[in-house]
Amino acid sequence: MEDVGGDRLAVDAGLRARAARVIPGGLYGHQNVASLPRGYPQFMSHGLGSRVWDVDGNEYIDLMCSYGPVLLGHRHPRVDEAVARQAALADCQNGPSPRMVELAEAMTDSVDHADWAIFSKNGTDATTQCVTIARAATAKRKILVATGAYHGAAPWCTPGPSGVLPEDRAHLIQYRYNDLASVEAAASAAGDDLAGIVVSPIRHDIGVDLELPDPVFATGLRALCDRTGAVLILDDVRCGLRLHHGSSWEPIGVAPDLSAWSKAIANGYALGAVLGRASLADAVRSIYTTGSFWFAAVSMAASLATLQVLDEEDTVGRTVKIGTMLREGLAEQASARGLEVSLSGPVQMPFLSFAGDDTFALANVFAQRSILGGVYLHPRHNWFVSGAMDEDDLARVLDVTESAFDEVAASS
Amino acid sequence: MEDVGGDRLAVDAGLRARAARVIPGGLYGHQNVASLPRGYPQFMSHGLGSRVWDVDGNEYIDLMCSYGPVLLGHRHPRVDEAVARQAALADCQNGPSPRMVELAEAMTDSVDHADWAIFSKNGTDATTQCVTIARAATAKRKILVATGAYHGAAPWCTPGPSGVLPEDRAHLIQYRYNDLASVEAAASAAGDDLAGIVVSPIRHDIGVDLELPDPVFATGLRALCDRTGAVLILDDVRCGLRLHHGSSWEPIGVAPDLSAWSKAIANGYALGAVLGRASLADAVRSIYTTGSFWFAAVSMAASLATLQVLDEEDTVGRTVKIGTMLREGLAEQASARGLEVSLSGPVQMPFLSFAGDDTFALANVFAQRSILGGVYLHPRHNWFVSGAMDEDDLARVLDVTESAFDEVAASS
Repeated sequence: MEDVGGDRLAVDAGLRARAARVIPGGLYGHQNVASLPRGYPQFMSHGLGSRVWDVDGNEYIDLMCSYGPVLLGHRHPRVDEAVARQAALADCQNGPSPRMVELAEAMTDSVDHADWAIFSKNGTDATTQCVTIARAATAKRKILVATGAYHGAAPWCTPGPSGVLPEDRAHLIQYRYNDLASVEAAASAAGDDLAGIVVSPIRHDIGVDLELPDPVFATGLRALCDRTGAVLILDDVRCGLRLHHGSSWEPIGVAPDLSAWSKAIANGYALGAVLGRASLADAVRSIYTTGSFWFAAVSMAASLATLQVLDEEDTVGRTVKIGTMLREGLAEQASARGLEVSLSGPVQMPFLSFAGDDTFALANVFAQRSILGGVYLHPRHNWFVSGAMDEDDLARVLDVTESAFDEVAASS
Repeated sequence: MEDVGGDRLAVDAGLRARAARVIPGGLYGHQNVASLPRGYPQFMSHGLGSRVWDVDGNEYIDLMCSYGPVLLGHRHPRVDEAVARQAALADCQNGPSPRMVELAEAMTDSVDHADWAIFSKNGTDATTQCVTIARAATAKRKILVATGAYHGAAPWCTPGPSGVLPEDRAHLIQYRYNDLASVEAAASAAGDDLAGIVVSPIRHDIGVDLELPDPVFATGLRALCDRTGAVLILDDVRCGLRLHHGSSWEPIGVAPDLSAWSKAIANGYALGAVLGRASLADAVRSIYTTGSFWFAAVSMAASLATLQVLDEEDTVGRTVKIGTMLREGLAEQASARGLEVSLSGPVQMPFLSFAGDDTFALANVFAQRSILGGVYLHPRHNWFVSGAMDEDDLARVLDVTESAFDEVAASS
């Protein structure tokens, strides 16, 4: 294999060396490429539509979309225009701008279960608010969460235990995704202290095949909450607006009481939201939740433009179409080489895994060949198809994945 | 008194009516004007330099600075230029941009105690990270916090108890600000389980006079941490960059182990930061903390420009000069009317209170007259002087406060 660092990532290497002196470990969190195969750039320069460029000028077709936030494509002109217009007025002020009311109206209009909206900055803000609202509304403590699910990186939910205390998770009870009996068992364990159930619209745990929700599971959660008075919380942070212009469980007919949103709702600008039923508005009023930048207008203007473009360009439909072609192409390429792969998740949030590849050795070969070929994807995290991807992009992706499968076949 | 709502806030009233239908209570958090006297607009339109305009076109000299974030004045041209240049490239990408390294270098250069930096979006992110890092570093649990101090709105620190569990605060022990004996007592209560001490550079609890730190208190905290191995955490979210271009305790010669930053560091763009000593870098590497938008480049570009302007325009010096004239003017006006007032805090973060005004009745009269006169200040929260305020602005402010004191004198 060719040199995967070297001259190709020379500027990146210089930045990494500088970063190592002033940022612990050089980087932290989900964008740290330390655990990815060599060849991934750590530092990015810019993006446009379906393409991104690293600091060395290498161009990639982007199948990660900034780990979810970029939905319509990078620097979508309609979003950029709305951002520039609002930035020329103000971002963070002594009070919100009219954009906040307009956005609350737009989101409650487009999401069936939503009677009200509150906004913040991060997905973790939103999921934490949901748990707090559920406890305030019910005056109960227990929250059910699926084993292995990711709901953010605050002490109560971060997957990393360092610095976190047992008390931070004292009243969480685990269930298994898509296993209604395990939810009923967890609810029984909670007894008369059950405040809420947190659930993702799909199972999208890191490093394992994605699972679509079994409608029996989803409707069973709804029935359990109706029976017990517990609050059903849909964590739509990663999926929201990618699967449906509305809550991600609307297509299967299950309405949560609360939903948490972030990532794609402002096409890459920092925004979180909680939407909920009227019956929970008093609980929202009772809690104290705020942030210095939560009422800032620019990301709300970006979100309003995103919601408009989503409809006008039929982004969900477009990403389903391209995502379907991508899945079919990948399946055919793998099959032609006798490679046993799993292609899971919604087609616009695909996950590829190789049979028996517990150490991700094959996934890493595939990812490394892809990044070197100019396709930015991830070996252990689901990918994202943006609305900017067209059939030419797809053809280029499939050219690269063909070589990547060749290399996997040669190495396995 | 004239009609304080009515035609003057007609557009605002319309937006409030719409907001009431889609946002619980019409608004939440620190920017909710429900608890302010009538006459305050809820919704703001735009800002420029020292001025802000509400949605009805009423103009105000801004003494709140978006509750702290706006340091150099609204839409400072150098910050706006940096923002536009970065936004034309990218904001949130698959990895950070070079701005992150540049900003970590700039902040560790300008803050004495800082060997490294990590970034986030909110002040609450930063204070929560500090507590987590302290626990990870020490493998101990107890955190000392001052009674009445504000360190954010997550479950462990929010001043509103609704929806929060005793377990969220199980290992907090309170002390009294500027009372070293109370800190020693709290540390004794922690026994050999003391992870860290959180302290604000000044006492800036809501609704009470601000207190500058007693150097004996500050040096005593440092000595206690040196003796016990506890982590000294300076919550510089509200004060950072306003008092000093560096940590706010540098002028009194006390270096924390960790410091939390947000608000003013990007002149209104959403950014949080934790800075710390080299000895805590391994603890940072051990925790899992991240957010979808934490590596986004635009607010980091804004922060780099802010740090440059802060030096070049001597913003701290300018705000001290104008703040001193403001304090002297207010003191003289109050005294001339026989009003007993307290003017506390650093002059650039002033707080005005009236003797015996426990219900804020006089503060509300003062604030209402000020807002109607075109000066945006707050009756229970400290104000902020921006670098854009000049002597003409000050003269206009003092004209308005003169009438406001007249009205207080008439009503008391």
